[in-house]
Amino acid sequence: MKRILIIHGPNLNLLGEREPDVYGRLTLSDIDAKLGDAAKKAGVELEIIQSNHEGAIVDIIHAARGNHDAIVINPGAYTHTSVAIRDAISAVGVPTVEVHLSNIYRREEFRRHSFIAEVAVGQVSGFGADSYMLGLRAAMKLAGAGE
Amino acid sequence: MKRILIIHGPNLNLLGEREPDVYGRLTLSDIDAKLGDAAKKAGVELEIIQSNHEGAIVDIIHAARGNHDAIVINPGAYTHTSVAIRDAISAVGVPTVEVHLSNIYRREEFRRHSFIAEVAVGQVSGFGADSYMLGLRAAMKLAGAGE
Amino acid sequence: MKRILIIHGPNLNLLGEREPDVYGRLTLSDIDAKLGDAAKKAGVELEIIQSNHEGAIVDIIHAARGNHDAIVINPGAYTHTSVAIRDAISAVGVPTVEVHLSNIYRREEFRRHSFIAEVAVGQVSGFGADSYMLGLRAAMKLAGAGE
Amino acid sequence: MKRILIIHGPNLNLLGEREPDVYGRLTLSDIDAKLGDAAKKAGVELEIIQSNHEGAIVDIIHAARGNHDAIVINPGAYTHTSVAIRDAISAVGVPTVEVHLSNIYRREEFRRHSFIAEVAVGQVSGFGADSYMLGLRAAMKLAGAGE
Amino acid sequence: MKRILIIHGPNLNLLGEREPDVYGRLTLSDIDAKLGDAAKKAGVELEIIQSNHEGAIVDIIHAARGNHDAIVINPGAYTHTSVAIRDAISAVGVPTVEVHLSNIYRREEFRRHSFIAEVAVGQVSGFGADSYMLGLRAAMKLAGAGE
Amino acid sequence: MKRILIIHGPNLNLLGEREPDVYGRLTLSDIDAKLGDAAKKAGVELEIIQSNHEGAIVDIIHAARGNHDAIVINPGAYTHTSVAIRDAISAVGVPTVEVHLSNIYRREEFRRHSFIAEVAVGQVSGFGADSYMLGLRAAMKLAGAGE
Amino acid sequence: MKRILIIHGPNLNLLGEREPDVYGRLTLSDIDAKLGDAAKKAGVELEIIQSNHEGAIVDIIHAARGNHDAIVINPGAYTHTSVAIRDAISAVGVPTVEVHLSNIYRREEFRRHSFIAEVAVGQVSGFGADSYMLGLRAAMKLAGAGE
Amino acid sequence: MKRILIIHGPNLNLLGEREPDVYGRLTLSDIDAKLGDAAKKAGVELEIIQSNHEGAIVDIIHAARGNHDAIVINPGAYTHTSVAIRDAISAVGVPTVEVHLSNIYRREEFRRHSFIAEVAVGQVSGFGADSYMLGLRAAMKLAGAGE
Amino acid sequence: MKRILIIHGPNLNLLGEREPDVYGRLTLSDIDAKLGDAAKKAGVELEIIQSNHEGAIVDIIHAARGNHDAIVINPGAYTHTSVAIRDAISAVGVPTVEVHLSNIYRREEFRRHSFIAEVAVGQVSGFGADSYMLGLRAAMKLAGAGE
Amino acid sequence: MKRILIIHGPNLNLLGEREPDVYGRLTLSDIDAKLGDAAKKAGVELEIIQSNHEGAIVDIIHAARGNHDAIVINPGAYTHTSVAIRDAISAVGVPTVEVHLSNIYRREEFRRHSFIAEVAVGQVSGFGADSYMLGLRAAMKLAGAGE
Amino acid sequence: MKRILIIHGPNLNLLGEREPDVYGRLTLSDIDAKLGDAAKKAGVELEIIQSNHEGAIVDIIHAARGNHDAIVINPGAYTHTSVAIRDAISAVGVPTVEVHLSNIYRREEFRRHSFIAEVAVGQVSGFGADSYMLGLRAAMKLAGAGE
Amino acid sequence: MKRILIIHGPNLNLLGEREPDVYGRLTLSDIDAKLGDAAKKAGVELEIIQSNHEGAIVDIIHAARGNHDAIVINPGAYTHTSVAIRDAISAVGVPTVEVHLSNIYRREEFRRHSFIAEVAVGQVSGFGADSYMLGLRAAMKLAGAGE
Repeated sequence: MKRILIIHGPNLNLLGEREPDVYGRLTLSDIDAKLGDAAKKAGVELEIIQSNHEGAIVDIIHAARGNHDAIVINPGAYTHTSVAIRDAISAVGVPTVEVHLSNIYRREEFRRHSFIAEVAVGQVSGFGADSYMLGLRAAMKLAGAGE
Repeated sequence: MKRILIIHGPNLNLLGEREPDVYGRLTLSDIDAKLGDAAKKAGVELEIIQSNHEGAIVDIIHAARGNHDAIVINPGAYTHTSVAIRDAISAVGVPTVEVHLSNIYRREEFRRHSFIAEVAVGQVSGFGADSYMLGLRAAMKLAGAGE
Repeated sequence: MKRILIIHGPNLNLLGEREPDVYGRLTLSDIDAKLGDAAKKAGVELEIIQSNHEGAIVDIIHAARGNHDAIVINPGAYTHTSVAIRDAISAVGVPTVEVHLSNIYRREEFRRHSFIAEVAVGQVSGFGADSYMLGLRAAMKLAGAGE
Repeated sequence: MKRILIIHGPNLNLLGEREPDVYGRLTLSDIDAKLGDAAKKAGVELEIIQSNHEGAIVDIIHAARGNHDAIVINPGAYTHTSVAIRDAISAVGVPTVEVHLSNIYRREEFRRHSFIAEVAVGQVSGFGADSYMLGLRAAMKLAGAGE
Repeated sequence: MKRILIIHGPNLNLLGEREPDVYGRLTLSDIDAKLGDAAKKAGVELEIIQSNHEGAIVDIIHAARGNHDAIVINPGAYTHTSVAIRDAISAVGVPTVEVHLSNIYRREEFRRHSFIAEVAVGQVSGFGADSYMLGLRAAMKLAGAGE
Repeated sequence: MKRILIIHGPNLNLLGEREPDVYGRLTLSDIDAKLGDAAKKAGVELEIIQSNHEGAIVDIIHAARGNHDAIVINPGAYTHTSVAIRDAISAVGVPTVEVHLSNIYRREEFRRHSFIAEVAVGQVSGFGADSYMLGLRAAMKLAGAGE
Repeated sequence: MKRILIIHGPNLNLLGEREPDVYGRLTLSDIDAKLGDAAKKAGVELEIIQSNHEGAIVDIIHAARGNHDAIVINPGAYTHTSVAIRDAISAVGVPTVEVHLSNIYRREEFRRHSFIAEVAVGQVSGFGADSYMLGLRAAMKLAGAGE
Repeated sequence: MKRILIIHGPNLNLLGEREPDVYGRLTLSDIDAKLGDAAKKAGVELEIIQSNHEGAIVDIIHAARGNHDAIVINPGAYTHTSVAIRDAISAVGVPTVEVHLSNIYRREEFRRHSFIAEVAVGQVSGFGADSYMLGLRAAMKLAGAGE
Repeated sequence: MKRILIIHGPNLNLLGEREPDVYGRLTLSDIDAKLGDAAKKAGVELEIIQSNHEGAIVDIIHAARGNHDAIVINPGAYTHTSVAIRDAISAVGVPTVEVHLSNIYRREEFRRHSFIAEVAVGQVSGFGADSYMLGLRAAMKLAGAGE
Repeated sequence: MKRILIIHGPNLNLLGEREPDVYGRLTLSDIDAKLGDAAKKAGVELEIIQSNHEGAIVDIIHAARGNHDAIVINPGAYTHTSVAIRDAISAVGVPTVEVHLSNIYRREEFRRHSFIAEVAVGQVSGFGADSYMLGLRAAMKLAGAGE
Repeated sequence: MKRILIIHGPNLNLLGEREPDVYGRLTLSDIDAKLGDAAKKAGVELEIIQSNHEGAIVDIIHAARGNHDAIVINPGAYTHTSVAIRDAISAVGVPTVEVHLSNIYRREEFRRHSFIAEVAVGQVSGFGADSYMLGLRAAMKLAGAGE
Repeated sequence: MKRILIIHGPNLNLLGEREPDVYGRLTLSDIDAKLGDAAKKAGVELEIIQSNHEGAIVDIIHAARGNHDAIVINPGAYTHTSVAIRDAISAVGVPTVEVHLSNIYRREEFRRHSFIAEVAVGQVSGFGADSYMLGLRAAMKLAGAGE
């Protein structure tokens, strides 16, 4: 059975309460439930983690080696500032999909550059919670799971 | 019945023959067939057009007003140079999904800026032909067509 | 009798329907009617053309040589991206007035540079449909047509 | 009766003597006379002021509140350096038209940015003394005066 | 008895009438009254001056040498353009506090650089009229007056 | 009773020992004592925390929601590199005052940009320990406490 | 018999009439005649096309696959703005020589960058009509034709 | 008898008291006396003016037309910010020598660009009061006076 | 006996498995063993720590004050993004040597700037594991240990 | 009889041994032989010189005045750094053709700017040894020799 | 008796023949004669050297230590590229005056930056041969010779 | 027996006399003696050369092919400007170590870019004379000479 790791980056624990006109009204557990359902239906095992700590996210990615077949990551603010997470993804060699709730190309200048995009297989951004759903499908494809 | 417009931009007619290590070996008709199947299954009507002409793509987008419920566009090279296509998308108000076969953030500097991303609802890039499949799903969601 | 060519660039065919808070509620035919009235009163002959195609606009400008005494052009999105239209204006030697409905200096960064301004005699921007009316007056002056 | 304020910025008192190939041979009083005639014909009252002092121009604009229905300003060199004049225009809320004798987009790099354009309603540049005449028309329109 | 000089830069005479959503509804005399009360309570003598003229502000700063123990300045638009005021502050050696009503780091790009900050002791910005009150406290500290 | 949270960012635990010519000779507990006295006098409750960890500071800010009425933060080095802290402040909606011991505009280029300033209500910098005292006053005002 | 495709880009149809001090007095048919003579002498078949349309030039390049052994292109204004033509050349794999009548490195800043140079085999610029003659020789070499 | 105008820009009235390690210990009247002696010896008439006002300096330059044979100007801070003074020099056509006490190329970045240098005949900087003496000699040469 | 602290930054725990063509095939414990041998031979005591957490590395550096005579740090990805680590090194005053396995000046643009280099005594990069050995020697010299 | 000077810049003496995949396997004497044959056939006299010294190349160019009718130069590394060679070419007034073995626009960023291109009549790059052959033809044309 | 070294940089040996509209018609020996006369009159010994070689100029400057009391250098093209000459001037500690015939701030962009200005005592530019005469006077002052 | 070439770049002959606070008080022969001792002990043959001439350094590097097993170079000022030396290193294929006495990343902006770093195996900077000693060790390792 294929295993996929979902990583929610900093501030995503506040989802649904924080700037709902930008990020939507679904909470993170709403999204996790939807991801869980889709994974179940596809016969895939999910692990879901949220952290506000850059170093902790690096540790989590390291632990994915040998344990997961693909990663879906919403790196949040670390998208724009973390070379460490980028290097971790590049080092472990697990195929990774980058997702964003909002369209980062319609926001402030500093949000338009992603250190992660340059090591991810691909990127999905701008569809709210559906960015995760589409990202999960892409990850299942990369993991060789179903469809 | 919902109607979705697929637009393939310049040089995509050569797909499958051109730089297969970058763009994969599927031809454009292979992709169109896969899109057709998925649309059929979802009960959605597709119109698919390819053009190498910036002005023609503007005309096509104009014609989508009132005729289509969503657009999926791979603007190809015009991603990086066309303000006219950007303005057309912004003017007609049909929700639009931008897709790219390759991960544009892993390529030359000039391919990393997209005029289209700033007016599209969202973007999917880097999954080869699957970018289109995921983009179609996103567009069906935006069009209010099932899942 | 003096002859003046009016060129409307890409997306202007949607005028009055597209982002009316930016571009106003007059349609392109409303504007053409006003221009026609003013030209008639001044005893000047007008030719009015709209195109979404960069190459077509180049062709139209070429055809103005020997046929028209002045050009009024609203290059729309091509203002910011077309060296070809710039070179065409410079090549044919017909005095040209650049007009914009909106004040391009109050908008996005990429709209503040005009390739056309550097070869036009002058520029009028920000007065809505009146930009065309003032531009026509300027063109009549350049064409040696009365006041 | 509508009242319009004309402001001539620094060095314009030398007009007609200074670099005539750039600015033409008309003097400032020639231009003022033409403006006066046009205003008279249109039943509009004009006040005309020239100053080389940035602070004085700020004072003049402040005094226009409640006294004038529109402003026509040629900010000269302060176009490119004065945030204070920009803020004054923005503060008093009198609709303002920016005019330039020469086409500032065909000159040195530092003359191509205007702090004023970002708060003016619109801009007319490149038609010599006619820039003022067209600017006056635009201002009369904004003031609700005639045509 | 310690003496402190308050300098209000260009356009601040319009305070309370100008863009109240940016600058608040208090007028300059309201602020001066509050400053006067606080100074009285602290046993400090205030001199308060407003000018729209860069050169006049330079003259005022020169006159502070030997006459004042500290300066509180809101340089308004000259914050971003005046090397002359910067040099004056640096030359007279009177400790200077820079204040801004609005948070200049949340506004247009050109308002984010301050020539004055590089010679002031410190800066207070973003608290409306309270920026002046906090600035006055800081200045009293620098002047060696009370608390 | 109003509650205010004071956050000291990285390396501030070394205060008084580290580069005293830049940061002064007061230790962090000296400053905390002064803040405590002022809060007591004003009838405000303080919570004071120091951390060298970006993620921990994000967690602390999240916990302030519903618990504190205002935040005073000296983000230290994270001022210049942390989008995560910026997003946390923006997400929790607690009014926040940014303070700096030194005048960051008189130091190295990379210290002149603050990601935090763009989401804080205002900023106080350059007055040594007094920056905190002034920042606390500003925060009490924002919290609706006293004066 | 080897076949070579000559592509003249936008505005070149005006050659000989347009800015002769920059581009010389030869017309495009004069150049085509000279190219024809040289090709005949070398036993090479030429196809010569001029277009002002970016999309049309892309189509022409596509059609060269399998039909021509080398391309000589003067992309005119599209040199500086067309990623689509660049991608077309890169996609079809026909060896391509870029030519310019004038020395583009002695002209305006925006003319000094060529998107085409990065995919062409080589470039000849600055020799007037002789740029074409030298370019044709280079193309014949690349096509394996004579000398 | 030849007439030369000396203009001292902003803050130069403080000379000798202000940052003596940068500008030296001579006062402005010391320098004026030295200039007077040299002029007397050379049979040249001097007019010497100091102002902190940009607009006043523009007025003074205008008045030099027909009255003076050369200008020596130390534009102080306006060197780096005044397009108005630049345009005034360019407009009146009196040959102008730019002088600086300090070597502006060894100071802060923003002091290394001079708007004035581009219209002055030449520049002397870095020799303290001797910059004026050398500048006066150069101006006498330009005025056709002696040596 | 002299004490030296070795700090391995983020992702170095994966050494030997991660991109061996860039970083070599030695694992971190291989390197630590080599460092241990050299230290033993030189009569120096080593402490060796690896962490993926920026804040933790700041804490470790703080703890070195009074405990270690020199630091050898390979800051990994934090080389390019951490002002906090830079400030920590600068604050504790323990002489620090920066080492890199690969030559950071031959890699991506963003890896060429080091915040650490500006506060380290010196830097050794590009010799694989030998960078550590050379860095240890340099640190022993700085600590006053042997040779 | 016409005389042409061929200058080979720094490192070209190593041709054929240095990075043959970039520069080809022909040695410099192979190329010189080919150039000699072509010159002989055309009745032109050649002088060929190689130097690694910037100053020496300047001397050689100076000596060409009155001695040679045209120059073909491959400036090698000095292409990108030598203002002295540029000035020498500009000073002697002998028409000069710039050649490069490789296509400098497909290489590192710093090789894309040529100081020489701005003073040469034209440029040929990217055809290996044939760049010299084409350059020689261009030079013969400029020298008024044959064809 | 004081000794002053005059250094003429690359291409200055061509003076009077090279672009006389920029540099004037005086030859280098004309200038040397004028310098010699002035030095004689002032009782100063001159050594005058011209070289096209960067390394040679470095050697000459080295040799000035202990031999000369001041240097006047026109670094020509090396002004803009030579860090070596800059370091030589900085190393030998002989006070140095930089001179230029033309006003380098009115020429091409790349000529406006001088590496030398940052280590010279001062600079004289734009007065043709008189730049040397003024520079010599400044150097005599620095050498403690006469006036 | 292994042979290593030491190259000292421009101005290094002045070592010990030039800015001793930056470069230390050791002379070049002191350093050469230390290098000689270390080489002797390791059974390695050294050749040591100093030159101020860019071209000469290129020649020396060329001559190292076949004669030396590794190079240690301190390129001095040419570090920042010499593409020729860079190409020479790249051409001869002898492994090269770049050394600097001072930490170039703590100095002026223009000294922070090294053309040499991009072709050297590695770099050692900031340890004074010890940079050479560490660099020699690294070179011996690269040459396959003991430890």
